[in-house]
Amino acid sequence: MEFKTNVGMSETDKINVHGYDLVEDLMGSITLADMAFLGAKHRKPTEAESKMLNAVMVAICEHGFTPSSISTRLTYLGAPEAVQAAVAAGLLGAGTVYLGAMEQVAEMLKDGMDKHGADKSAAELATLILDERAEKGLQLPGFGHPIHRPVDPRTVKLFEIAKELGFYKKNSETINEISKQFNERKGKPITLNAVGAIGAVLADMDFDHRVMKSFAVASRAVGLVAHIVEEIESGRKESVGQQLFDYVEEHTDYTAKSAAAK
Amino acid sequence: MEFKTNVGMSETDKINVHGYDLVEDLMGSITLADMAFLGAKHRKPTEAESKMLNAVMVAICEHGFTPSSISTRLTYLGAPEAVQAAVAAGLLGAGTVYLGAMEQVAEMLKDGMDKHGADKSAAELATLILDERAEKGLQLPGFGHPIHRPVDPRTVKLFEIAKELGFYKKNSETINEISKQFNERKGKPITLNAVGAIGAVLADMDFDHRVMKSFAVASRAVGLVAHIVEEIESGRKESVGQQLFDYVEEHTDYTAKSAAAK
Amino acid sequence: MEFKTNVGMSETDKINVHGYDLVEDLMGSITLADMAFLGAKHRKPTEAESKMLNAVMVAICEHGFTPSSISTRLTYLGAPEAVQAAVAAGLLGAGTVYLGAMEQVAEMLKDGMDKHGADKSAAELATLILDERAEKGLQLPGFGHPIHRPVDPRTVKLFEIAKELGFYKKNSETINEISKQFNERKGKPITLNAVGAIGAVLADMDFDHRVMKSFAVASRAVGLVAHIVEEIESGRKESVGQQLFDYVEEHTDYTAKSAAAK
Amino acid sequence: MEFKTNVGMSETDKINVHGYDLVEDLMGSITLADMAFLGAKHRKPTEAESKMLNAVMVAICEHGFTPSSISTRLTYLGAPEAVQAAVAAGLLGAGTVYLGAMEQVAEMLKDGMDKHGADKSAAELATLILDERAEKGLQLPGFGHPIHRPVDPRTVKLFEIAKELGFYKKNSETINEISKQFNERKGKPITLNAVGAIGAVLADMDFDHRVMKSFAVASRAVGLVAHIVEEIESGRKESVGQQLFDYVEEHTDYTAKSAAAK
Repeated sequence: MEFKTNVGMSETDKINVHGYDLVEDLMGSITLADMAFLGAKHRKPTEAESKMLNAVMVAICEHGFTPSSISTRLTYLGAPEAVQAAVAAGLLGAGTVYLGAMEQVAEMLKDGMDKHGADKSAAELATLILDERAEKGLQLPGFGHPIHRPVDPRTVKLFEIAKELGFYKKNSETINEISKQFNERKGKPITLNAVGAIGAVLADMDFDHRVMKSFAVASRAVGLVAHIVEEIESGRKESVGQQLFDYVEEHTDYTAKSAAAK
Repeated sequence: MEFKTNVGMSETDKINVHGYDLVEDLMGSITLADMAFLGAKHRKPTEAESKMLNAVMVAICEHGFTPSSISTRLTYLGAPEAVQAAVAAGLLGAGTVYLGAMEQVAEMLKDGMDKHGADKSAAELATLILDERAEKGLQLPGFGHPIHRPVDPRTVKLFEIAKELGFYKKNSETINEISKQFNERKGKPITLNAVGAIGAVLADMDFDHRVMKSFAVASRAVGLVAHIVEEIESGRKESVGQQLFDYVEEHTDYTAKSAAAK
Repeated sequence: MEFKTNVGMSETDKINVHGYDLVEDLMGSITLADMAFLGAKHRKPTEAESKMLNAVMVAICEHGFTPSSISTRLTYLGAPEAVQAAVAAGLLGAGTVYLGAMEQVAEMLKDGMDKHGADKSAAELATLILDERAEKGLQLPGFGHPIHRPVDPRTVKLFEIAKELGFYKKNSETINEISKQFNERKGKPITLNAVGAIGAVLADMDFDHRVMKSFAVASRAVGLVAHIVEEIESGRKESVGQQLFDYVEEHTDYTAKSAAAK
Repeated sequence: MEFKTNVGMSETDKINVHGYDLVEDLMGSITLADMAFLGAKHRKPTEAESKMLNAVMVAICEHGFTPSSISTRLTYLGAPEAVQAAVAAGLLGAGTVYLGAMEQVAEMLKDGMDKHGADKSAAELATLILDERAEKGLQLPGFGHPIHRPVDPRTVKLFEIAKELGFYKKNSETINEISKQFNERKGKPITLNAVGAIGAVLADMDFDHRVMKSFAVASRAVGLVAHIVEEIESGRKESVGQQLFDYVEEHTDYTAKSAAAK
C-alpha cells in the first residue's frame, strides 16, 4: 500500500510542501493564508491572489461574541490545559446556519452558468437564477443579516478590493445583479452579507465551491485565539466563560419541578 | 450583567475589532496571521512582527501525514457534510506530545531569567537551567526529532529570519546556548526542533507563553485545508482516508478470538 | 431572562433530573441507557423499553477498527492528557455516511405513513415507498453493508428482541416488507443493515426521528472507552495509533516531488 | 503490518467483541454501561459490578446547565445537521477542572497504599496522605463543591450502594477517613464530592485510575442527549442556545471602544 499525497513530506534535512521546499521557498516569503491557497491550488498565489485571500480570511475571522466564541470560552473554563479542545469546540458550530451560505452561493452561481451559459449577461443570469429558485421554493443563500441592515460593510469593502485586484468578475457581477433584482422583487432592501460576497469572490478566484468552507473554518480558528487570550488574561473568576455560566445558573427555570410526582 | 470584551463588537454599519474598524483599518491591509497577533497583543503588528509571525505560523502549519491530518481525513470520510468537524478532529491531538514543548520552552526560559536574573549571560543561564533540570530529573523540552537529525532545517531558518528582523534576543540566545551545552553533556548532537525554536522566538517577541499554543493550533487549522481538499479531489474511493481504513481492516489481528470460550 | 429547561437543576441537597430526584429515584435503579430515554421522553422507561433501548445501544456501540475508533487512537497519541478530546475526535465522523441512515429510515417510514395512511398494510406501504423513491431517483437508506452479506446478524437479533418485547410494529413490519420487495426488484439480496433496523425499531418505540442520531453518538462514546483503554494498556510504542502512523509515514508516496521546479 | 486488538472484529455473519459474540452473548443481555466495563476489563461484569457501574455513570451523566451542556446547545444552533459535533463540543470541556479529580483521587489512594502498605488502616493511610500533601503544598482532589455543601447527596448514595454491593473497600474507607480528618484540620466541613467518591469506588472495583475519565466522558455523552432533544423540541427561536446568544449580544460591553484612535 502506498498513500499518495501532494501535500507534503519530511526528509532528514528538508520539508516538502506542495512541491516547494518549506524552508527555502515558503518560510519568510509567504503569509499564513497563502498556505491555505497552496492547499487548494497546489501552487503559490500571485501577489494579488494573496492580498485578496488575506482580505477574505480577515473579513470572517472575528465577530466578537458568537455562539462559536462563547463555546470556546466555556470549554476553556473546564479544560484550560487543552487549548486545542477550546478552539475545536468553537469551530464545531460552523455548520449550515452561519457559514454554509458561502458554498451555496458559489454553487448556485456555478449551476446557473453551467445551465444557462456563462456568456449570458449577469443581469440575465440573475433573473434566471431568481426565477428558478422562486419556482422551486428555495431560499436565496447569502442574503440577510441580523445586524448589518441594509448593508454589510464587509460586502462593500470586499467587492472594492476585488475590483482593485482584478477579481471582480462574472460571479461577483451576478451576485450583485441578484441582489438588485431581489430587492426589487421584495420591494425592500435585503442585505447581501459578507459570506455571500465571499462565495462570489472566491468563485471569481477559481476556487471550487467545495473547498470554501474549509477556508472559513481555518480563518475562524485564527479568530478564536483572541477569545482564549482574553480568558487567560482575565483570570478564571473574571472570565466571560465563568460569568456567563454563573448567570445561567442563577437564571434557570427548572420547568419539570412539579413533575416530581410522576 | 455586562460581558466585557476587548475583542470585538458589531454595529449596524461597522465591526469593531480590538479597537480597530475591521473594514477601514484591517481588511485589505493586514494578513490573517496579524489577526492572531491582534488577538494576543490588542494592537496591530509592525511590519517586522507581521513577517516574523507569518514565518512562524507557516513553519508549523503543514507536515504531510501526521496523526492529526490522518484524523481529519478519517473524519471527513464519515461526515463530508461537516468540514468543520474534520478540521476539529485534526486539531484535537495537538496536545502535550507534539506541540506542548513550545509553551514549556518559553516557560523554562522565563523561569530561568526570573530566578537567576535576565542580566546573566545566555551561557550562564543555559548552565543554570540545565543543572536545575538535571537535578530535578526533568526532561528538556524542545529537543529531539524523529526525522530531522541532527538539525531541524526550520530551526536554522527561523533564527536566521529572527536575526534579520531583530527578534533574536535573550531567549533565542539562551536556547541556542542550552543546545550547545546539552550536546556537550550528552556527547552527541540532539536536534533543537522547530517547536523549541519557536518557543524562544515568540518569547523574544514578548508573547506570554500561555498564548503560544493557540497560535500553533490556529496554524494547524490552516494546514488542514490541504488535507480536506485532497480528500475532496481524490473522490471517496481513491481517498487516503478510505484506503487507510481498508488497509487497517484487512490487517487486523483480533487477539481475543480464542477468548470466545470465556 | 430566564432559561427554561426540563432537563435538570441542582439544589443544595438534591439534584433534579426530568422531574425525578437523581439520588432517590434514579441512581441504583436505572441504567445508563435509561438516562438517554429520559432525555428524549422526559419519563422513565418501562422494563421492556429499557431492555430494548439497551439492546439497540449495545448493538451499535462497538465495531472494532473503524475510521472513528482510529481517529480516537491517533488523537490520544498526541494528547494523552485529554481523553475527552480523543473521544470527541472519534465521534466527529459520525456523520451522514455511517449513521445518518437511522434517521433517514425513520423519516422515510413516517413520511410514507403520513402520506398514504398508517392503516395501509406494510406490504402496500412498502410498494408505495419504493415506487416513490425509484421515481425520484432517491437511494434507499438502511440497506447495504460491506461485510455482513446478505444478512446483518444484528438486524435479525434486533427484530427478534423487538418481537419479544412488543416493539415489532408497523415501522418494523414495513421496513421488512421493503427489504423483501427491494430484493425482488433487484433480483438479489441486499442487506437490511443494523442501522436501518434500528431506525424502524426506535420509530416503533415512538421516538422522533430527529433524536435518534444522538442515541447513536452517545452509544459510540461508550464504545470508544475500549479503544482508549487498549491504547493506554499497550503503551505508546506498541499502541495501534503509533504503529499506524509509522506505517503511513513509511508508505507515503509524495506525488508532488517532481513539481519542486515549479 | 498487523494491527493487534482485543476490542472487536466483524466477520460476515458474526461480530466479535472482547471475545464475545455481540449478537449471541451481548445484545439483549447486557446494558450499555456494561460495554464500558467490557472495554476496560475484557470480561462481562457480574450483576453487582453492572449495577455499581450503572449507578456511577448515572450519577455523573446529567447536571442541567453546565459549561458543557451550554456548549452543546450553542454548537447545535450553528450546526443542527451535525449532532455529533454538538455532543463533541459538550465533551471537550471535560478537562482537569471538572472531572480530573476522579483520576487524581484514585491515583492518590493508590500511591498512598503503594508507599505505605495497603495493610495500614484507613485512618493511618489518611493521615499519611494528608500529611504528605500538606507538606508538598498539594491540593486535595475530590473535595469542595459550589452547590452541594456540606454534603453531596450523590456521595452518600454512592457509598450506600457500594456497601450493599460489596464495593466499599479500602479505597472508599480511606477517602472517607481523609474526609473526616480533613474537616478536623480545616475546622469546618468540606464536601467530599461525587467525583471524589467515584474515584474511590471505581478503585475498589479494581479499575485502573487512567481509564476512569473515559467512563465519565462516555457518561456525559449520554447526558447530552437530553440537551439536544430539548433544543430540537423548543425550536430554534425558543431554544436556550438562541436565547443565551441574544442575551450576550445585548449585554456586551466592548471595552476597546475608546481605543479606536490607536
